[in-house]
Amino acid sequence: MPSHAPGQTAEPTTFRATSPLTGEDGPSIPEATEAQVKAAVTAATDAYRALRTWRPSRLAALLDAVADALEHRSHEIVAAARQETGLAVAALEGESLRTVGQLRMFSRLVLTGRHLEATVDHADPGARPPRPDLRRMNVPLGPVAVFGASNFPLAFGVAGGDTASALAAGCPVVVKGHPLHPVTSTLCAEAIDAALRDMAAPPGTFALLQGGSHAVARQLVTEPGIKAVGFTGSTAGGRALYDLAAARPEPIPVFAEMGSVNPVVIFESALRVRGARIATELAGSLLTRTGQLCTSPGILFVPQGEPGDALVAALREELLAGGRGPMLSPGMAGSLTSALEEACATPGVSLATGGHRLSAVELENTLVIADAKAFSAGPHLREEYFGPASVLVRFGPMAELLSMLDLLPGSLTFTIHAEPGDAPDPVVALAAERAGRIVWNDYPTGVAVTEAMHHGGPYPATSSAAHTSVGPAAIRRFLRPVSYQNTPDAVLPEALRERNPLGLSRLVDSEWTRAGEPGLSAGSGCTGRA
Amino acid sequence: MPSHAPGQTAEPTTFRATSPLTGEDGPSIPEATEAQVKAAVTAATDAYRALRTWRPSRLAALLDAVADALEHRSHEIVAAARQETGLAVAALEGESLRTVGQLRMFSRLVLTGRHLEATVDHADPGARPPRPDLRRMNVPLGPVAVFGASNFPLAFGVAGGDTASALAAGCPVVVKGHPLHPVTSTLCAEAIDAALRDMAAPPGTFALLQGGSHAVARQLVTEPGIKAVGFTGSTAGGRALYDLAAARPEPIPVFAEMGSVNPVVIFESALRVRGARIATELAGSLLTRTGQLCTSPGILFVPQGEPGDALVAALREELLAGGRGPMLSPGMAGSLTSALEEACATPGVSLATGGHRLSAVELENTLVIADAKAFSAGPHLREEYFGPASVLVRFGPMAELLSMLDLLPGSLTFTIHAEPGDAPDPVVALAAERAGRIVWNDYPTGVAVTEAMHHGGPYPATSSAAHTSVGPAAIRRFLRPVSYQNTPDAVLPEALRERNPLGLSRLVDSEWTRAGEPGLSAGSGCTGRA
Repeated sequence: MPSHAPGQTAEPTTFRATSPLTGEDGPSIPEATEAQVKAAVTAATDAYRALRTWRPSRLAALLDAVADALEHRSHEIVAAARQETGLAVAALEGESLRTVGQLRMFSRLVLTGRHLEATVDHADPGARPPRPDLRRMNVPLGPVAVFGASNFPLAFGVAGGDTASALAAGCPVVVKGHPLHPVTSTLCAEAIDAALRDMAAPPGTFALLQGGSHAVARQLVTEPGIKAVGFTGSTAGGRALYDLAAARPEPIPVFAEMGSVNPVVIFESALRVRGARIATELAGSLLTRTGQLCTSPGILFVPQGEPGDALVAALREELLAGGRGPMLSPGMAGSLTSALEEACATPGVSLATGGHRLSAVELENTLVIADAKAFSAGPHLREEYFGPASVLVRFGPMAELLSMLDLLPGSLTFTIHAEPGDAPDPVVALAAERAGRIVWNDYPTGVAVTEAMHHGGPYPATSSAAHTSVGPAAIRRFLRPVSYQNTPDAVLPEALRERNPLGLSRLVDSEWTRAGEPGLSAGSGCTGRA
Repeated sequence: MPSHAPGQTAEPTTFRATSPLTGEDGPSIPEATEAQVKAAVTAATDAYRALRTWRPSRLAALLDAVADALEHRSHEIVAAARQETGLAVAALEGESLRTVGQLRMFSRLVLTGRHLEATVDHADPGARPPRPDLRRMNVPLGPVAVFGASNFPLAFGVAGGDTASALAAGCPVVVKGHPLHPVTSTLCAEAIDAALRDMAAPPGTFALLQGGSHAVARQLVTEPGIKAVGFTGSTAGGRALYDLAAARPEPIPVFAEMGSVNPVVIFESALRVRGARIATELAGSLLTRTGQLCTSPGILFVPQGEPGDALVAALREELLAGGRGPMLSPGMAGSLTSALEEACATPGVSLATGGHRLSAVELENTLVIADAKAFSAGPHLREEYFGPASVLVRFGPMAELLSMLDLLPGSLTFTIHAEPGDAPDPVVALAAERAGRIVWNDYPTGVAVTEAMHHGGPYPATSSAAHTSVGPAAIRRFLRPVSYQNTPDAVLPEALRERNPLGLSRLVDSEWTRAGEPGLSAGSGCTGRA
């Protein structure tokens, strides 16, 4: 669906989302025109300049107001998301709490000013050469384009973590709504807009652009006024945006969270102590949200021998008995079906259970078994299977395991199940090399929103291994430092003035000026582990 | 000069540098072969895995040993650099101190462990949903390719800030030496190699590759084992590496510090109080190192009227009387000559002084005067003039000044001269938008190596506005976070263990566990303001 050329007077291009629950089409949604995209970015640039004059306390109040507005409309938003995505109401309610909790977490962060990293070095005229007075703080990058995920319509959607962290940084946000849930996006945008009006935010602070084609996305990323991109979705989609952004006359950073295979290595010691429990819990992790999670355990390494055999048998039973749900769209169900067919046509690969498509949007819970030779030969077995399917590989000698692990692409997570002393150092070292989060005797699904969370990882899990999209540190993506040399106090931003009027924790002449910091982890009830 | 295909037995390709002082050719230097580049990266990958097991104290000792080795050979290194670059001995001696000081500064940083940003969130089983134990720290990215600058053969060269910060992060370094000073590069590499041997560092921890063509650079950036790039040089060179890195199957970050016009806006109030002093000091800044500085003041905005006329006249006298020196190469002198010819052929542009080439490597000190119309129409007047030349523009009404400032590309610095109350807010706001460092009633040349320094800026000043290449924060370019979930203490890296055996300052349950931090600014005598 191409967008119309400006000035054309034909009916606007429209698109509809189809409910995976009912198969019914949603309302007709007009696709943003080229002129609308341009106008949104121009307004965002104006808003950026206005927002930069806001005190932290006003920005924090804005985030709280957005949280309140979303909370106020949460029943309506969850109902729309249920209809458009088919995700369970309980899951969406958890997401809603997390979305609101994230906004409030960033509000608290902004109040502390810790993200500004205010640093003061007083002049040292006696140094050789003499040193001037230097003060550094972080400032917002500029307007940010956000691309929401299909599988997390709230917490990684229009009002999700990318939007919350960008606004907290002082960056206006232009969201390209995901075409699979346009009504949910509209409701979230309405709540945000109402809160921004109440807080007298500049008009371009936030905009939602809808689109069923790629035209809006392509234009948005290449608009000169956009200074960074946040994206959650497929590797192909993230890479396409990355390539567009890198080819601009002024390249901009793209923080894309993409595909991840989330390997799980289970050692025999763990199976001997708690094999049955692992089967139950692992199946639970695998089937969460019908496997449509960025942290879903995609490749399972299980030792050869009896305890491993028992795990495979138990996992098979769990998956057969486990709940099923619709995938987000027939397209996604079709992609998974094709990928499984390709896998099963490979010598050395078989199905422990599942593999069949049951309806336009539903597949059987599936466990693919690959032998080490097939796994090592076939790159297609080392890619993400988005949905209720995982690949299980049996390993013999440690060298065989290590050579397979060495073939793994970058992941968000790397899980190890082992009793004390049973996990060889090279496996642990490789885990830290290939993933952003190492999970020990636990499961990768469930992303706690705390300081120490890193939701990121080496390519292709993300396009920027140094950044997280979850937790307070996510704000760093949208900030850059500015130093002030020899600048009069009256001209300095408040954060850097000599008397520290904002009461910030600052590094002054290489010493911290304040010890304590208020807590920032999202409080109980607001923390999402969805 | 193409490099040879592997297995070819012909004589290796060689190149020579020519001294801008004497015009004499230096020794014949073999260009690294494709096989040598590959071998260096493979060895660096092995070294990366070994270095990751080193304690911070051992890494710090390694940096100190490199500093000692360079200090020990500093006379020899300065003499070679003098011959190959033509830079003044005093300037090179300052650079040598700075180079050594930077290594020691990073050694102290590594000992504090602050760059690890160790963060601990204890489990909260009572939270809804329950929260696991999560601990996060930074780990090295992997082998780093460093491209040294032509104009700072020591402080931004083989053993310069990029190498020092990468090693401090625990990343092995493969340097592509600048072809204009291969002997200097070799001497620095010898000192580094000797120190690494003494410290029993793994063999691939450091390598120098020489090359007179672009082949070595192209191969190095596209080798899969390289995980980040540090570069200091021209916009064209930096962008070429950025494009290569972005097009890799696994894109990697490029931290390129490139061209910068470093605007200087002088308001009438400053001229009335200290016009003569500004002329002297500004000319001094402009002529430092024959204008071959990334922070050289390239575009000067001066008000119309008598005080501005007086400044132009005084600047002209200062430049006529000011010292001259050779440029780094005939090629650079030729580029500047051509750029000045193009500028002077533009209607509305004239020469206040200079403009002529005096020898293969020497130009007159040059001041180009452009009227507002010419400046606004000609993008070539808003590019970096690398060498002893600046563009001066006269401005009338504030709106005219602002519309010209709005055309400026991103810069490392933005300088304002004004008495209190005389600099309009929009100019200050625009400065923070367009530059990484705002300099007030001072001069952009001179980059103090302290915590609060930001030596970076929006594109095209750098390819990553969020990062600095000078000061302790430069280490961030080569680190990425890893979280550990529910991980047994014995398996955790020491930095994250419950009892904090390294004595680090850590954020534990959102509270800082230690207040004080040892000082990190490079001490007097070690600080470079060259």
